[in-house]
Amino acid sequence: MQGGEFSVSTSQRMELVDITERISAAISAGGSNAGSGICYVYNPHTTAGLTINEGADPAVRDDIISVLKQVIPRDYPYKHLEGNSPAHIMASLMGSSVSVFIEKGRLRLGTWQKIYFCEFDGPRTRKVLWRMV
Amino acid sequence: MQGGEFSVSTSQRMELVDITERISAAISAGGSNAGSGICYVYNPHTTAGLTINEGADPAVRDDIISVLKQVIPRDYPYKHLEGNSPAHIMASLMGSSVSVFIEKGRLRLGTWQKIYFCEFDGPRTRKVLWRMV
Amino acid sequence: MQGGEFSVSTSQRMELVDITERISAAISAGGSNAGSGICYVYNPHTTAGLTINEGADPAVRDDIISVLKQVIPRDYPYKHLEGNSPAHIMASLMGSSVSVFIEKGRLRLGTWQKIYFCEFDGPRTRKVLWRMV
Repeated sequence: MQGGEFSVSTSQRMELVDITERISAAISAGGSNAGSGICYVYNPHTTAGLTINEGADPAVRDDIISVLKQVIPRDYPYKHLEGNSPAHIMASLMGSSVSVFIEKGRLRLGTWQKIYFCEFDGPRTRKVLWRMV
Repeated sequence: MQGGEFSVSTSQRMELVDITERISAAISAGGSNAGSGICYVYNPHTTAGLTINEGADPAVRDDIISVLKQVIPRDYPYKHLEGNSPAHIMASLMGSSVSVFIEKGRLRLGTWQKIYFCEFDGPRTRKVLWRMV
Repeated sequence: MQGGEFSVSTSQRMELVDITERISAAISAGGSNAGSGICYVYNPHTTAGLTINEGADPAVRDDIISVLKQVIPRDYPYKHLEGNSPAHIMASLMGSSVSVFIEKGRLRLGTWQKIYFCEFDGPRTRKVLWRMV
């Protein structure tokens, strides 16, 4: 089973970082072994998530963040006193992993799809794990 | 690795389409090879998603759509100018894939569970991909 | 393919139950066969879900439940007459499965991550399925 991990540096409190090329490059590095299969991407953090969405217009990313902020209130009687409860909740809403099919060593994404690391409590340096089955 | 794809035609802007039988039939077509394993269902679109929920009462599907519309505002200062930002956000909330166990060639769903293709920006003809490991 | 299932008893209407040790124990029971791989956890119920989030401060769980209650209204003109439509909607928001990497027979979770069974319509006795690839 092929796999590995890489770092993602975020520069804002909330940010969707396109990690598609990082994953593609990692898979390609496996060479011809990377035939067909499924690629798992895993986020080991509790105030971040992973999602797949449109890559063509960066405004889509802005809108996702904007509405998440609107829906999950920042000013709320949270019990967790670190001030990042909204980030924990958004992490669960987006999910901790995505899986994408691989065909002939390449990610089988839809035309407009990109894989995003979702930072909800940055800026930080984060880790992303991946594996291929 | 077995796999394939099929089309789903939607007739409304927002609609949950039961694709359980399509997946079951695809798996069964593999015959005795389809022993036990995991079935991955993948949605390659950025304004649609996949989810597993109740199939007995169609009102559950209506309620899911109704509340998503309520929670994700349509009238909002979105930056993405195509008018379908709510659909992109709902796509990320539902997720781009589901995985279900297979036992003796059959989907191991719970008693009330069905697999739904979630159309959030229809009507359109969509594609669903699946693979078995 | 290794796999199994276990029961989870919930004591409240909404509750996040830490099932990490249950999964770890099940994997360990496989002994040396449990090298590296991916562990799938599956929830076969339509008013419950699975998520991965912080385990250190129980207040995070309380905040997740509190905000889900706030965002998904209980008093709403739902069509489904069993009174548990919010639970169905939350089930789809959290998702029906999680997957976690396994290294040397142990779950490769992040430092603060725990796997939670999300009860949204309890108290009940629920079932959780798992498999290892």
